[in-house]
Amino acid sequence: MEFSAKQIADFLNGEVEGNEDVKVNTISKIEEAQPGSLSFLANPAYAPWIYKTKASIILVNNDFKPENAVNSTIVRVENAYNALAELLNMYRQSMPEKQGISSLASVADNAKLGKDIYIADFAYVDKNVIIGSKAKIYPHCYIGENVSIGENTIIYPGVKVYDNCVIGNDCTIHSGAVIGADGFGFAPQSDSNYKKIAQIGNVILEDHVEIGANTTIDRATMGSTVVKRGVKLDNLIQVAHNVVIGENTVIAAQSGIAGSSKVGKNCMIGGQVGISGHINIGDEVKIAAQSGLSSGVRNGKIIMGAPAFDHDKFIKSYIHFRNLEKIVKRIDELEMKLTQITGE
Amino acid sequence: MEFSAKQIADFLNGEVEGNEDVKVNTISKIEEAQPGSLSFLANPAYAPWIYKTKASIILVNNDFKPENAVNSTIVRVENAYNALAELLNMYRQSMPEKQGISSLASVADNAKLGKDIYIADFAYVDKNVIIGSKAKIYPHCYIGENVSIGENTIIYPGVKVYDNCVIGNDCTIHSGAVIGADGFGFAPQSDSNYKKIAQIGNVILEDHVEIGANTTIDRATMGSTVVKRGVKLDNLIQVAHNVVIGENTVIAAQSGIAGSSKVGKNCMIGGQVGISGHINIGDEVKIAAQSGLSSGVRNGKIIMGAPAFDHDKFIKSYIHFRNLEKIVKRIDELEMKLTQITGE
Amino acid sequence: MEFSAKQIADFLNGEVEGNEDVKVNTISKIEEAQPGSLSFLANPAYAPWIYKTKASIILVNNDFKPENAVNSTIVRVENAYNALAELLNMYRQSMPEKQGISSLASVADNAKLGKDIYIADFAYVDKNVIIGSKAKIYPHCYIGENVSIGENTIIYPGVKVYDNCVIGNDCTIHSGAVIGADGFGFAPQSDSNYKKIAQIGNVILEDHVEIGANTTIDRATMGSTVVKRGVKLDNLIQVAHNVVIGENTVIAAQSGIAGSSKVGKNCMIGGQVGISGHINIGDEVKIAAQSGLSSGVRNGKIIMGAPAFDHDKFIKSYIHFRNLEKIVKRIDELEMKLTQITGE
Repeated sequence: MEFSAKQIADFLNGEVEGNEDVKVNTISKIEEAQPGSLSFLANPAYAPWIYKTKASIILVNNDFKPENAVNSTIVRVENAYNALAELLNMYRQSMPEKQGISSLASVADNAKLGKDIYIADFAYVDKNVIIGSKAKIYPHCYIGENVSIGENTIIYPGVKVYDNCVIGNDCTIHSGAVIGADGFGFAPQSDSNYKKIAQIGNVILEDHVEIGANTTIDRATMGSTVVKRGVKLDNLIQVAHNVVIGENTVIAAQSGIAGSSKVGKNCMIGGQVGISGHINIGDEVKIAAQSGLSSGVRNGKIIMGAPAFDHDKFIKSYIHFRNLEKIVKRIDELEMKLTQITGE
Repeated sequence: MEFSAKQIADFLNGEVEGNEDVKVNTISKIEEAQPGSLSFLANPAYAPWIYKTKASIILVNNDFKPENAVNSTIVRVENAYNALAELLNMYRQSMPEKQGISSLASVADNAKLGKDIYIADFAYVDKNVIIGSKAKIYPHCYIGENVSIGENTIIYPGVKVYDNCVIGNDCTIHSGAVIGADGFGFAPQSDSNYKKIAQIGNVILEDHVEIGANTTIDRATMGSTVVKRGVKLDNLIQVAHNVVIGENTVIAAQSGIAGSSKVGKNCMIGGQVGISGHINIGDEVKIAAQSGLSSGVRNGKIIMGAPAFDHDKFIKSYIHFRNLEKIVKRIDELEMKLTQITGE
Repeated sequence: MEFSAKQIADFLNGEVEGNEDVKVNTISKIEEAQPGSLSFLANPAYAPWIYKTKASIILVNNDFKPENAVNSTIVRVENAYNALAELLNMYRQSMPEKQGISSLASVADNAKLGKDIYIADFAYVDKNVIIGSKAKIYPHCYIGENVSIGENTIIYPGVKVYDNCVIGNDCTIHSGAVIGADGFGFAPQSDSNYKKIAQIGNVILEDHVEIGANTTIDRATMGSTVVKRGVKLDNLIQVAHNVVIGENTVIAAQSGIAGSSKVGKNCMIGGQVGISGHINIGDEVKIAAQSGLSSGVRNGKIIMGAPAFDHDKFIKSYIHFRNLEKIVKRIDELEMKLTQITGE
């Protein structure tokens, strides 16, 4: 497939600067692009590349003002990143899709299967499962008893969904994710042993949720662990029993949320963050990577550190931490001078 | 199934306060409970809920003294959390159990299979494997050569157990856990390459061990990586080669223990903790979440920080860290005043 | 198999001290060894064990000077650790190897399969896949469309390789690793929703790469996520989209690298380290465990902390951090004394 700058500008409702007939057949990063590539500039940190890239076409934001000559054809759009997203999706959707129910799958007789679904070789679908239309279940997936999976949802190879869990529409779950394993609940006994607390709840993923590879979301002890509409979880994240994550919150890789904590909506949580159990994180909270939260956070706060507190205050304290040796020397000197004065 | 408050109190050896005929058919958290639910109060932080919950029955500890009117029927027991655990287990055990050996499994001819076991579709059981009676092997599990699995042990979907590992009785291993992958051992060469050290040891899980989803326990270089009786590991934990974890130690999610370290018994280790290689952690040690240990710890210590030291001392230092800017201003001021005095 | 000290010394080009006829049939750690074991001493921390071990033979470095009597036969070699590695590999290679293509595997008709390969039961090999000679694909592996796998590469049970990824020769990938899942890319929309950015790139693992259990390496948005020749990644590591990791860099468990960052060659990165997106780490950089990097690092630096800075400087600052309470008391006292002087 080849497209001209003009065709792309028309599709994206954009405006061409330069040769509108130049053609591209692939999409590349600006620093790696070769002739025949379409590229984009959204992050200003990459602006210097626009003057030396070999890309044939570059998408830029409407307000981009070049400071030097640009060799590539420019296509101005309202939002270069969104425009790129549209092109990438178009590219992706042009690939052939998997479909059909494999004779090498194990599907319970009473499973309710929607139209145009894909169930791959070696997939396992247990009793009373409901699968919505156009859903895709890749090889080696395990879908436990009574699970329901919404329409258009993609379950990549090797995902395990324990019994009674509920997956919404338009979700994507990547390989190795485990949905609904037992919460970590044990009652300490007088002899130092622990007695397992049976975990009889489930996990609910609402619509438009994406779950990264090898992420684990434990079932509730009672009731449900809930991941609300539009939440995006990266890889290797731990979500413990009875956690609730609010709408459109995004969490980067390797973060963990302990049991029964609630995270608000529209939060942005960095990688390797740890959130203690039984606390409340408000809406629109931003948490820097590697922070540790042992108490609740109000709406809109930006926090950092372990234990975490106000982001700007942390940065200031940390600058002084880096200089602690000098600070202590200043105290040494003060003490010396004072001793000289007092003669003690 | 429906039970009255009286029936439950009789079963739990408890005492009813309120309507002993009220009936429940499910178990819920106190803050989510609806009429028809049994709930419980064990954590004092949730005490305010007891005056507004809709639960029909609430288990409380014998010594609970209500400060306001409670609408629900109360059942007093010695330990509300343990009583809840008993009821949850009863509920869980009332569900039908998987059994039988699937014709869609691959089981080596010479595997020794105990009575009443379950081997699911697409499970793989290699040569010389021994599986104890009533053990359950779910779909997509891999049980390598010479592995032995004890009685009543449950291996959830997609667990991988490499050759020669030993799993005890009454263990539970959750989906995606990997038992016995190679330890991370490489000998640096003069040309900056690394030469792999073959890992010829194994992993031993003793009895009553629970392993969380996607946790990894590497085989020993030589000898065994050992997880002792009663240990409970949460999800996404890393246990490196030749580690030994003592009896009844519990470790929260995403913690990691590097090669050849020994952890004592009855320890409580928070989430995202890192323990360096070749060190000894004593018995009954408590480690706060996200701590990092680069040297050994004596019995009974409570530690925090990265690198970790005494918990209370860390908390005090951290309070001052949060105020470092003010502290430095105090030094600025001292210097200024002293200069005024000395005239320098 | 039994070998005498003389045979072992001959094989390793070493020199015997003591009874050259003593025989061993296994390899053990020095602190666990029993008669009939060969052991080794490479790490000086374990030197005290050489005087009390029950090992029949001990490999030591040429320059080892015993301070007391050693009961075992000693074999001196240039590098005891390398010599051990050779013996362990020999031991490992003496075990029978898996081979053949299972009739219980699902292999696409047009897959190109090299000689002497192993494809296990329940392995899934999709269209246009190329598998090099002597490669091994264990049970429950998923090899997506157009993937190529090099010669001698071992893919352990349950590894998932998404479409279009490229795996080199002599690689080892451990169970549960996910190669090529979507990068975590979403464009924020005006209504707080996120729009998925299709990830059309792939992952390239060059030759001699080892990937630990449950490690995740995301495909590039465009172009490739690249893990270069000789890199060794431990378990549960996150490598985000468009990351590049240089030759022979080793990374310990549970570390994560965010999108588009470049890590140089010959780096040593500790466990639980976090590296932000879009930064450059130089060559031969050493990063202490649990460090957090939010900006680039020049060649050869040794760094620590979160955020990370110079290792030695961090250690000094941290010593003062541990004493912050005393430091603040010194300031209290200075203020008091100064007040006494000035009378204010």
